[in-house]
Amino acid sequence: MKFSKGRAFLFRVPEGEELLRYINEFAKKNNVLMGTVSAIGSLRNPKIGYFDEAAGGYNVIELSGTYELVSLSGNVSLKDGEPFAHIHVALGDSDGSLYGGHLVEGEVFVAEVFIQELLGEILERKPQENGLSLWDVEE
Amino acid sequence: MKFSKGRAFLFRVPEGEELLRYINEFAKKNNVLMGTVSAIGSLRNPKIGYFDEAAGGYNVIELSGTYELVSLSGNVSLKDGEPFAHIHVALGDSDGSLYGGHLVEGEVFVAEVFIQELLGEILERKPQENGLSLWDVEE
Amino acid sequence: MKFSKGRAFLFRVPEGEELLRYINEFAKKNNVLMGTVSAIGSLRNPKIGYFDEAAGGYNVIELSGTYELVSLSGNVSLKDGEPFAHIHVALGDSDGSLYGGHLVEGEVFVAEVFIQELLGEILERKPQENGLSLWDVEE
Repeated sequence: MKFSKGRAFLFRVPEGEELLRYINEFAKKNNVLMGTVSAIGSLRNPKIGYFDEAAGGYNVIELSGTYELVSLSGNVSLKDGEPFAHIHVALGDSDGSLYGGHLVEGEVFVAEVFIQELLGEILERKPQENGLSLWDVEE
Repeated sequence: MKFSKGRAFLFRVPEGEELLRYINEFAKKNNVLMGTVSAIGSLRNPKIGYFDEAAGGYNVIELSGTYELVSLSGNVSLKDGEPFAHIHVALGDSDGSLYGGHLVEGEVFVAEVFIQELLGEILERKPQENGLSLWDVEE
Repeated sequence: MKFSKGRAFLFRVPEGEELLRYINEFAKKNNVLMGTVSAIGSLRNPKIGYFDEAAGGYNVIELSGTYELVSLSGNVSLKDGEPFAHIHVALGDSDGSLYGGHLVEGEVFVAEVFIQELLGEILERKPQENGLSLWDVEE
């Protein structure tokens, strides 16, 4: 799908907010229906998911303590008629070791977020047989 | 080098495709000569490379199983006259441990890819004495 | 904060340069006051930081050898009146294991850097009680 560029947002999320919910609320409030998301910062007690194909759902890994948010990468599209952020993160501990996967939740210590709105035909997530909600594939 | 923004593409790659080949073919088909690439998703049996300066080539690390594609970052430029994607990835296993390096290949389970075309003077990869193909350095 | 897109830069940093200093100098030379930064490549003897909240400063982890620069993600804004890059990196060793955190320094073997300038009201880093320099939070 081809898009044109809309608005660009760069902002700091307040300490204590849950990051995934904040990004979703930001998209709704600003009517960002499609876009890309990236960020760096630091998260407390993040939960990340690994998709278990056999089970058709995410295994959730709960990390405790504060982690550097080394990368955050993802997109915004529509799910159930509302803006929905799909985000993966890499997290660094005090030794510099990295952990990561699908962002389930994380409390913000620091988060500097960039959202690039995309304008054009809307991509919509639809439930699949494998348990995921995905866009139609590119033809 | 300074560029202006061209087209923006956001799309899902069909399951079963080899991701690096798909991105290269997408760039050729859409005549994207220069650009940036990012993605998230999940890959099966990915192979990643670590460049061994002494050997002048990549050591290939073969991972088995399905990994969360935690980050995918890179660019498209010209090599041997054709669009060529240079891509690095971070991959998460079922424990949330991360592995990564230069993307050699990976079978798509899920891949949501963003490509930003760049327009301007073309950067071209040229073989170097160290075994890599690189652009001229910025002056 | 909402921005419009300015110039886009994609370039290779010369081997032997210290990457963080180079990006900061590039921003100053080109008068990039706000923007996003990403890169891939390979770094020698990188130093990464983990922010220790109790100590109010970064613990520095010194890695030795050459690492794949698997992801580099961050932004440029103003600090003390000058462009300042805040950057996090993920680094891969010869086994494909990843390490990462806040980029303190790293000698370039290869670095392909993308900077997207943002135009609009300027975000400025101000010293906080916790020891970090941060923008005002989004309202």
